[in-house]
Amino acid sequence: MELKEAIFNRRSIRSFLEKPVGRELIKEIMYAGIHAPTGGNIQPWAFVGISDPLVIKKIRVISPGMLDEPAAVICVYSDQKKAFEKAGKTGEVLALMDCAMAAQNIMLRAFDLGLGTCVIRSFNQSAVRVITGAPEHMRPELLIATGYTDEKPALPARDTGVIYMEAYGRRGAKK
Amino acid sequence: MELKEAIFNRRSIRSFLEKPVGRELIKEIMYAGIHAPTGGNIQPWAFVGISDPLVIKKIRVISPGMLDEPAAVICVYSDQKKAFEKAGKTGEVLALMDCAMAAQNIMLRAFDLGLGTCVIRSFNQSAVRVITGAPEHMRPELLIATGYTDEKPALPARDTGVIYMEAYGRRGAKK
Repeated sequence: MELKEAIFNRRSIRSFLEKPVGRELIKEIMYAGIHAPTGGNIQPWAFVGISDPLVIKKIRVISPGMLDEPAAVICVYSDQKKAFEKAGKTGEVLALMDCAMAAQNIMLRAFDLGLGTCVIRSFNQSAVRVITGAPEHMRPELLIATGYTDEKPALPARDTGVIYMEAYGRRGAKK
Repeated sequence: MELKEAIFNRRSIRSFLEKPVGRELIKEIMYAGIHAPTGGNIQPWAFVGISDPLVIKKIRVISPGMLDEPAAVICVYSDQKKAFEKAGKTGEVLALMDCAMAAQNIMLRAFDLGLGTCVIRSFNQSAVRVITGAPEHMRPELLIATGYTDEKPALPARDTGVIYMEAYGRRGAKK
């Protein structure tokens, strides 16, 4: 798929088919994550793909942001230890941003491979950490609900009036 | 360009040609930003594309992370007012993540359109806000140095050992 098509047509999917998503496919998608930019090549992240329905059920219970039960969930963690060792206190924010950029790569690649996704921040971070067996320094930052889509939502209205040239508020940038 | 090609071949570029980048092209690239996911469709962001060399020189002085002088700079702001009104205290982190995902869209699209980019967090946020004439509630989160590339860096070594299946640390996910 063309990059342009992926960027403009990807939607957040909140209704999934029950059809399972193969493990190889989930791994393929996560692989896009490690190609995001990361300051100083720190790579303060990790990714766990979950396809076990029992684990997904557990995660859903403590994730108000997860509206449907997807066939797969990808958890994106920040590595707080690595982030702090390499960048001190600012490492926390840097790691958060690296994780978000990795998540965007993952969602675009999922769409490219025929899957729908929805990125979720509304969940109990400690509970997800424990459920997925991650050590204390690995903080779950985002969940990506992943599966074959059961809906075709239109693009939510997006404001093009936030794009400026040369200075904030300077017009002529509207598309 | 294929999405896969963009994700896997994009590099952070730190050496740019002096060749100017047209305003229409900069706008085209920024347009990809507003297509990132944004929780509750809040869109807590704004984008200013800068091609004026004098403004770029000013920004560079207060941006230790900007190693070369690019022909263009894209500033990604979080809208603190919108974020707080819609999501309270958590809005700050949500806005940061939305901005990072928008930045990734922008960098992929820039690569697709023949440009190199480098995302920068190491800069004086208040100074960039003032230089670009943004109001107090708009916080510059990321700068994206943009231009025609003067280098072809190899992919920095990326650790595939951070990709797991079903539980943290569970192997078999290595590609």
